[in-house]
Amino acid sequence: MQDYRVSLEEIHTYVKNIEDTGKVASYIPELANVNKAHFGIYLNNLKGEDQHIGDYNIPFSVQSISKVLTLSKALQLIGTDVWKRMDVEPSGDPFNHLSLLELEEGIPRNPLINAGAIVIADILVSELKDPKNEFLQFVRDITNDQTIAFNEKVALSEKNTGFVNYATANLLKSFGNLKNDVETVLDFYFHQCALEMTCKQLSNAFYLFANRGNCMRDVAHLSLTQVKRINAIMLTCGFYDEAGEFAFEVGLPGKSGVGGGIVALLPNEFVIVTWSPGLNPKGNSYLGMQALEQFTTKTGKSIF
Amino acid sequence: MQDYRVSLEEIHTYVKNIEDTGKVASYIPELANVNKAHFGIYLNNLKGEDQHIGDYNIPFSVQSISKVLTLSKALQLIGTDVWKRMDVEPSGDPFNHLSLLELEEGIPRNPLINAGAIVIADILVSELKDPKNEFLQFVRDITNDQTIAFNEKVALSEKNTGFVNYATANLLKSFGNLKNDVETVLDFYFHQCALEMTCKQLSNAFYLFANRGNCMRDVAHLSLTQVKRINAIMLTCGFYDEAGEFAFEVGLPGKSGVGGGIVALLPNEFVIVTWSPGLNPKGNSYLGMQALEQFTTKTGKSIF
Amino acid sequence: MQDYRVSLEEIHTYVKNIEDTGKVASYIPELANVNKAHFGIYLNNLKGEDQHIGDYNIPFSVQSISKVLTLSKALQLIGTDVWKRMDVEPSGDPFNHLSLLELEEGIPRNPLINAGAIVIADILVSELKDPKNEFLQFVRDITNDQTIAFNEKVALSEKNTGFVNYATANLLKSFGNLKNDVETVLDFYFHQCALEMTCKQLSNAFYLFANRGNCMRDVAHLSLTQVKRINAIMLTCGFYDEAGEFAFEVGLPGKSGVGGGIVALLPNEFVIVTWSPGLNPKGNSYLGMQALEQFTTKTGKSIF
Amino acid sequence: MQDYRVSLEEIHTYVKNIEDTGKVASYIPELANVNKAHFGIYLNNLKGEDQHIGDYNIPFSVQSISKVLTLSKALQLIGTDVWKRMDVEPSGDPFNHLSLLELEEGIPRNPLINAGAIVIADILVSELKDPKNEFLQFVRDITNDQTIAFNEKVALSEKNTGFVNYATANLLKSFGNLKNDVETVLDFYFHQCALEMTCKQLSNAFYLFANRGNCMRDVAHLSLTQVKRINAIMLTCGFYDEAGEFAFEVGLPGKSGVGGGIVALLPNEFVIVTWSPGLNPKGNSYLGMQALEQFTTKTGKSIF
Repeated sequence: MQDYRVSLEEIHTYVKNIEDTGKVASYIPELANVNKAHFGIYLNNLKGEDQHIGDYNIPFSVQSISKVLTLSKALQLIGTDVWKRMDVEPSGDPFNHLSLLELEEGIPRNPLINAGAIVIADILVSELKDPKNEFLQFVRDITNDQTIAFNEKVALSEKNTGFVNYATANLLKSFGNLKNDVETVLDFYFHQCALEMTCKQLSNAFYLFANRGNCMRDVAHLSLTQVKRINAIMLTCGFYDEAGEFAFEVGLPGKSGVGGGIVALLPNEFVIVTWSPGLNPKGNSYLGMQALEQFTTKTGKSIF
Repeated sequence: MQDYRVSLEEIHTYVKNIEDTGKVASYIPELANVNKAHFGIYLNNLKGEDQHIGDYNIPFSVQSISKVLTLSKALQLIGTDVWKRMDVEPSGDPFNHLSLLELEEGIPRNPLINAGAIVIADILVSELKDPKNEFLQFVRDITNDQTIAFNEKVALSEKNTGFVNYATANLLKSFGNLKNDVETVLDFYFHQCALEMTCKQLSNAFYLFANRGNCMRDVAHLSLTQVKRINAIMLTCGFYDEAGEFAFEVGLPGKSGVGGGIVALLPNEFVIVTWSPGLNPKGNSYLGMQALEQFTTKTGKSIF
Repeated sequence: MQDYRVSLEEIHTYVKNIEDTGKVASYIPELANVNKAHFGIYLNNLKGEDQHIGDYNIPFSVQSISKVLTLSKALQLIGTDVWKRMDVEPSGDPFNHLSLLELEEGIPRNPLINAGAIVIADILVSELKDPKNEFLQFVRDITNDQTIAFNEKVALSEKNTGFVNYATANLLKSFGNLKNDVETVLDFYFHQCALEMTCKQLSNAFYLFANRGNCMRDVAHLSLTQVKRINAIMLTCGFYDEAGEFAFEVGLPGKSGVGGGIVALLPNEFVIVTWSPGLNPKGNSYLGMQALEQFTTKTGKSIF
Repeated sequence: MQDYRVSLEEIHTYVKNIEDTGKVASYIPELANVNKAHFGIYLNNLKGEDQHIGDYNIPFSVQSISKVLTLSKALQLIGTDVWKRMDVEPSGDPFNHLSLLELEEGIPRNPLINAGAIVIADILVSELKDPKNEFLQFVRDITNDQTIAFNEKVALSEKNTGFVNYATANLLKSFGNLKNDVETVLDFYFHQCALEMTCKQLSNAFYLFANRGNCMRDVAHLSLTQVKRINAIMLTCGFYDEAGEFAFEVGLPGKSGVGGGIVALLPNEFVIVTWSPGLNPKGNSYLGMQALEQFTTKTGKSIF
């Protein structure tokens, strides 16, 4: 672990010397208020010898990172039936999101693009009695932290400006791939995106993906097969149109969010979470990507 | 005009001998209740010597035919500013409607595809104090018939099942090409589609496009330039993905609707309206298309 | 005809006062040598009272205008069988030409886009014993001018740089919609594009489309139905992605070429040809488009 | 290793009981002659304790598997300059290959789709004096086997029917992303695809990707960073439109070819090669995919 510690500090120094050309997400007005200067890393080595640096303990909006958690809950509830309603292929398309949905007749390419995550939300709305609270409780349980909460102001801000998500949900509905009504599903979806967690909390939540499906309290939440497949999906689809680039440069399964967070993990070894709100043109944290690239270069740790 | 009379009767006979393989539109439940056996033609020769056959006097849902009327009203209100918000090119795309909107960043290809007509609806909602009633009054005025009305049951049925239109309006909104809120614009749009008119009433409404902008009472509603351009748009864009085919086979500007109506016209000569609810796979009236093809073949009347 | 004369002169004056922002086609090196300052108009009123102005008598490369002539020859040879191998719909797509061909499995959208014209060339190569010479003779016959010829340097220049046409022909071949080998078909195609004609010669060639299929010597080359359909295709597909714009602004069937020529016509009334080598961003002559718009505005002549 | 042996035999039994619904590739006539009943597996555990079963020692056409080897050679020759001419993102598109190239202006999405591999071929043609022989020598060297050769009949068969590859190369040329002439580049490309190797030889060739860049004779051919990146590209892009599915079901970097071969590997642990000529609808070996899925399920070996 000594190597890791050196790396975190070196990485912080390295990143401090880069001009942050990233831009804070502005299309959700509440997110635009975040201070771009925040930077934090949390490294969980699965053995209780965690390390951290910077703003690792300040909550931020997890946004799309939540899609991995809703997918996990959906797999827990209905297993492989999830794959009757979506595919597991990279979307590969930098800009043409709704067209793919049209061409493929309402079957999202994977659960980590918005269309797929909205279908996952629809599954949870169908399967849970009190969807928002039960999903929140699932996140609190796997994280072992009852303080995690939705930011209602962010959720409302997403609802008021989420026209593309409304377009997507209505298109899914037109193809019969949304069972509940659009408003109910999107209310859930906007809340999952508005979850607030710290780097530390996220590393605890994703512990189970590095630990064969068992959370920090050693409770089994997912089977080993399910975990391997979620990790495979993160690797191939976790970074929008930069998924290939991330696999190429970093070589770890991971997921980013427009709140500036990135989670990445090496099975059986570690979970690492970075937070830096400035985004590159593809919507991934500019400094976070560089920090992770440095981390895997310096430690030599990757799945390849 | 003698030739024309012969034609109408011959056409009716011709069409009666064709098996109607068309299907009544079913995605709007209220439209699915229409009896497919209806068939009517109304020919208005601009000189008061009209001719007709069959169910020319039964009101039906005009659906997309209304787009020509809302476009006319929008041109009356804001003139060429309409073209700042949409183009005049054929869409040319058989299936991939939302993708074109994505690629072209929220600028609909023309005012006769749904995306364009929704922007036109947005213009009318912005410009009129009481949009639905004022538009209805415009239609009554140019038709000189105060009995024309919206079918509220059809409008509601469209609203309840119009997921693709909701998707389109939200996508337009995301690109900033919808000024009013989605619900208000679509409420207007679903009502314009739910206008009910007979073949005769439609021929009277479209009289102004064959008569240099002047309606039957000789009131000028549009300039000659505006009328010519609306006719050009009908010719290039009036029949979904069959616009080229219609120009090729029939050779007249026209517009169809999924209620089974088709209006076509030869400037300075006539307006002809057909109604037959069975639709071909491209969404145009199966027998109506054949009736009009026969009409122009037998009379030799076309713009080419 | 007096009005027409006035128009031509006024139009010349009007156009001389516009800054020509067009660019001479440069992707075919031989075409790039043309002097952008050329400007000519030729108006053929079908009665022998022709008018002209400027460089109406200098030959230029007709390029895509030849597609209307090869289509005519193909219809003469195999009639409606032409439509088994292509459609008649506008392509509507500003940039994505090969993708449409892929999506529609090798069936070009219409005979005036390159893919369609290459299939037409394939038909002529199959049907004629000496394709290039027989086609040239056809053009000379309808024009009543034995001096018309291919420019071999231009044909060679097209061959050396025609990678997109090679891509298109090979894609057509892969779908089985090219019967002859790629080199033979493209040799024909590059020659047809390299035809050189003056404004006057072009107006004589297109005389038959304004004159119900009969050429200047009153020989019938096409049926009235064929002529009407060719005119319909010119109107809906004759100007690349500006077809709707041309129908909207000018309101005449026509065809442009990247050599800077435009032919337009009003059935039973006239053929007008303009030449100005500077092209707008969509590949149509910048000043030619404006000249024709002025012409129809001032004369009030259009099909609508 | 005992587990592995059990697995190979079990897998053979498992696979023998599956009806092979796959189809032998027929678009290259020479490939269509292969007997679909062939089946072989070769497992190289990096320690000299190899195992095998079935037709592991019969040469077959490696086809697209060669793309990993040409990419390796190109990286060896010009390093990261390779990435100036193509991207590393999954193509994600099941059918619309040339359109993506058009949209992205001649920049292939990755080096394992045909467009990317043709650009790699262009690089080798530029960089090598005797491209085909020097590349063949590279393959022989890393495999430590001087008997490996091109099948000239297959190469010729590919040339005679490779219309889509001609279309692709010409499109690349039109965008300036092909430096040499189309014929020369495709001659190289058709030969690389026509390499013939056995399962055993392929496992020896791919040994270096499991062994940090060093071949069986412990000669360093690629840096560790290069190897990791090649493995990442295989994982995200190695199986056409089934890349996500393979990562999801198998969880190993790998590459398939339409000759029916699949190579997969776990860094630092093993290389496994399967051969079964029947292809599933996405172009990957039907039984090979199932054999590898069984192998990773039974051994629990994957990168996730």
